[in-house]
Amino acid sequence: MNKTRLEAFSDGVFAIVITLLVLDIRPDLPGGTGWAMFVHAGPKILIYALSFILVGLYWVSHHNMLHFVEHTDRLFLWLNLLLLLVVAFIPYPAALLSSTHADTGSLCIYVATLSLANLLGAAVWFHATKGHRLVSNRIPPDFVKFVYVIHLAPVGVYLLAGLLAWQFREASLFLVALVPGFYVLPNPFIDRRVRAAHAAIKTSQTHGQQR
Amino acid sequence: MNKTRLEAFSDGVFAIVITLLVLDIRPDLPGGTGWAMFVHAGPKILIYALSFILVGLYWVSHHNMLHFVEHTDRLFLWLNLLLLLVVAFIPYPAALLSSTHADTGSLCIYVATLSLANLLGAAVWFHATKGHRLVSNRIPPDFVKFVYVIHLAPVGVYLLAGLLAWQFREASLFLVALVPGFYVLPNPFIDRRVRAAHAAIKTSQTHGQQR
Amino acid sequence: MNKTRLEAFSDGVFAIVITLLVLDIRPDLPGGTGWAMFVHAGPKILIYALSFILVGLYWVSHHNMLHFVEHTDRLFLWLNLLLLLVVAFIPYPAALLSSTHADTGSLCIYVATLSLANLLGAAVWFHATKGHRLVSNRIPPDFVKFVYVIHLAPVGVYLLAGLLAWQFREASLFLVALVPGFYVLPNPFIDRRVRAAHAAIKTSQTHGQQR
Amino acid sequence: MNKTRLEAFSDGVFAIVITLLVLDIRPDLPGGTGWAMFVHAGPKILIYALSFILVGLYWVSHHNMLHFVEHTDRLFLWLNLLLLLVVAFIPYPAALLSSTHADTGSLCIYVATLSLANLLGAAVWFHATKGHRLVSNRIPPDFVKFVYVIHLAPVGVYLLAGLLAWQFREASLFLVALVPGFYVLPNPFIDRRVRAAHAAIKTSQTHGQQR
Repeated sequence: MNKTRLEAFSDGVFAIVITLLVLDIRPDLPGGTGWAMFVHAGPKILIYALSFILVGLYWVSHHNMLHFVEHTDRLFLWLNLLLLLVVAFIPYPAALLSSTHADTGSLCIYVATLSLANLLGAAVWFHATKGHRLVSNRIPPDFVKFVYVIHLAPVGVYLLAGLLAWQFREASLFLVALVPGFYVLPNPFIDRRVRAAHAAIKTSQTHGQQR
Repeated sequence: MNKTRLEAFSDGVFAIVITLLVLDIRPDLPGGTGWAMFVHAGPKILIYALSFILVGLYWVSHHNMLHFVEHTDRLFLWLNLLLLLVVAFIPYPAALLSSTHADTGSLCIYVATLSLANLLGAAVWFHATKGHRLVSNRIPPDFVKFVYVIHLAPVGVYLLAGLLAWQFREASLFLVALVPGFYVLPNPFIDRRVRAAHAAIKTSQTHGQQR
Repeated sequence: MNKTRLEAFSDGVFAIVITLLVLDIRPDLPGGTGWAMFVHAGPKILIYALSFILVGLYWVSHHNMLHFVEHTDRLFLWLNLLLLLVVAFIPYPAALLSSTHADTGSLCIYVATLSLANLLGAAVWFHATKGHRLVSNRIPPDFVKFVYVIHLAPVGVYLLAGLLAWQFREASLFLVALVPGFYVLPNPFIDRRVRAAHAAIKTSQTHGQQR
Repeated sequence: MNKTRLEAFSDGVFAIVITLLVLDIRPDLPGGTGWAMFVHAGPKILIYALSFILVGLYWVSHHNMLHFVEHTDRLFLWLNLLLLLVVAFIPYPAALLSSTHADTGSLCIYVATLSLANLLGAAVWFHATKGHRLVSNRIPPDFVKFVYVIHLAPVGVYLLAGLLAWQFREASLFLVALVPGFYVLPNPFIDRRVRAAHAAIKTSQTHGQQR
C-alpha cells in the first residue's frame, strides 16, 4: 500500500464522515412551521457545527502527520484504519449528544470517542517514528515529541470536560469547543515548530509535490 | 496543506452533499400507487433539482476561485472548511423547505444558508487576494473585484427572495431559481473577464495542469 | 474547469449514488427472524442489484464518452451536471419500485428516469461532437453516430418496458434487466468500433495517461 | 477503462461503504439517558467495528490484487463491479445481524455475503491471471496460487461459522472476527510471499508509482 493511496482513502473517509453529520438534523416537528422546526433544531445545529470542525481538525492533523511519513507498512495501515474506524464512528456520539440534549452520559461518550481518536493518532505517530521506522532521519527529535503534545493535550481537555459533565454540562461542552479554537486560530506556538520540521526534512525530499 | 489535497477534499464534500440531497425524497405514502407517490413527491423533486443545481454552482465557483490561488495557509484552510460546513448543511434547509411546503420560515432559512455560503466564498477570496497574499501578482485588480460581484450579487437576490417570502412564496422560490440561470447559461459578461484573468496569470504558471 | 477534475467529480457522484442504493434495504419486520426479514427483503435486493448494475453502466458509458472529449466548456459542464442530477436521482425511483412491489406507475417512472439519463448522455455527446467542438477531428464520423446508438437504443427498450408495465409487470422489469446484459457481456459489435475509434485518435494524443 | 480510474472508483466505493456502516447505530431509546442508549447500542457497535474491519480488509486485498494487474478488459471491469456490488451490500446483512441480535438466519446471511465477496475476489483474480491475460509474465505461479488461498481460505472459515450459527451463535460470530486477525497482525506467512512477488515483477515495471 503506497502512501498516496492510503492518504486518498483516508481523505475519502474524512470527507464522507464530515458530510454525513448533517443527516442527524431532520425536520422532525410534524405540522410545525419552518421557524419552529429551526428553533427546535438549534441544539442539533450547534452540535453539527462542533462535530464538523472537530472532524475537520482530525483531517488536518492526519494530513500534517502523514506529510512526514515516507513509507507505510502493514501495522501502519491497520493503525490508520483503526483511527478511521473511530473517526467514522463520531456521527453516533454526535447524534447521541443531540438526542439527549447533551446529558452527562452522552457528553462522556462524546469526549471518550474524541480521546480515543487522539490516542490512536498518537499510536500511529509512535509506530511511524519509533526508531525512525517510517519517517526521515532528519526529523528533529523535538518535533517528534511536539506532535505527541498536539495529539495528547486535547485528551487532557476532554478528560476535564468528562469530569465537568457530571455537574456543569454547558461548561463541559464549551470546553470541548475550545479545543479546535486552539488549532484553528493563528498559533505561533504551533506554526514555528511545523515550519522548522518542514525545513529539516526538505533536503531529503526530491519531489516537489510534498511542499 | 497543499492546494491539490485541499481541492480534492473539497470536491469530495461537494460530491457527497450533492448526492445526499436525494435521500430527502422517500416513497412515504403507505399503500399508495407509484403514480400517487410520485405526484405527492413532486415538490420535493423540484427542491431536489434546485438544490442540486445550487450546490453544483458552489462547486464550480469554488473551482474557479481556487484556480487563481497559488498557496494556502492556515486561515485559508479553515475559512474553506467553514464554507464547506455551510455547503454541507444545505441538505437540512432543503429538507425543511420540502417538509413545510416552502413556508415563509423555511424559505428565509434556505436563502440565509445560501447567503452565508456566498459570504464565506467572498471571505475566502478576500483572504487570498488581500495584498496578493495567496494569489499571483498578475491577477488584474478588476478581476479581483469582479469575483466579489460574482459572490455577493446573489446575496442581494437572496435577500429580496427572503423579503418576498413573507407575502409571495412562489415568487420567492422562483427568484432563487433564477440565480443559477445567470451562471449556467452562456454569459459573455462573465466569460470575457474570466478569460482575461486566465490569460493574465498564464505567463506566471509553469505547469500545464492548471490550464 | 479542466476535464480531469470534471471526471473526478463525476466519478465521485457515481460512486456515492451506487453505494447509497443499499440504504433502501432495511431490516423492517420488527420481531421477525433473520431468514424472514431476508425473504421479505428479496425483491428490494433484486432491485438493488439491478439499479447498481445500471448505475455502473452509466459510469462506464460516461468514462468511455469522456475519453474522446479533449476540452470542456461551460455548457458541457452544465449538461454533465444535469446528467449527474438525473443519475443521482435514481435511488428514488428504485425505492419507489421496491416500496410499491413494482406497480405500473413506479415501473414507468423508473424507465422514464433511465431514459432521461440516456437522453442527457446523448445531449452531452451532441454538444461535444457537433462541429468537433470538444473532440478530436480524427474521430471517425461513424463512431460519432455509433455512440448515439449506444445512448439511444436503450431508450427504445425502456419505452417498450414502459408500455409492457401496464399489462405484464414482470416482463417489463425483465426487459429492463436485459439492457445491461447487452453491454456487460463480451460484444464484438461494440468492441470493434470502440477499438477503431481509439486507434483513430491515438496519433492526435501526446500524453500517455489517456490510453 | 484504465486501471487507475477503476482503482479510484473502487476506492471511492470502499470508502463510502465503510463510512455508511455507522448509520445503522442510532440513538433509539426515546427518553433514555445517554448511558442507557449507549449500553443498548453495544452489540450494534461491536457489529459496526467488525464490519468496518472486514470492509477494510476487502479494500486492502483489492489494492494488493490490483497491484499485479497491468491491463483491464471489459470482463475484468464487470467482475470488479460485481465484487463492489456485494461489498456495497454488506451494510444490509450487518444491519440484519444487529437488528436480530445475531440470530441464526442473520449470521448465515452475513457469512454468505462475505463468502460471495471472497469468491468474486477469486474470480477477478482468475480472470486476470488465466494465461497471464492481464498480469505480468513474471508473476511466480506459486504466488498466483497463493492469492487464491488468501481469497478462499476465509470462505472455509465462513462456512464453518455458518454451521456453528445453528447451535453456538456467539462462537460463530467470534470465528468470523478471527478472520481479519489473521490478516491484520504481522504475518510472515503472507509477507514473505508478497515481497517475493513484488520483487519478481519489479523489473518489468518502469513507472515508480506502483512501488
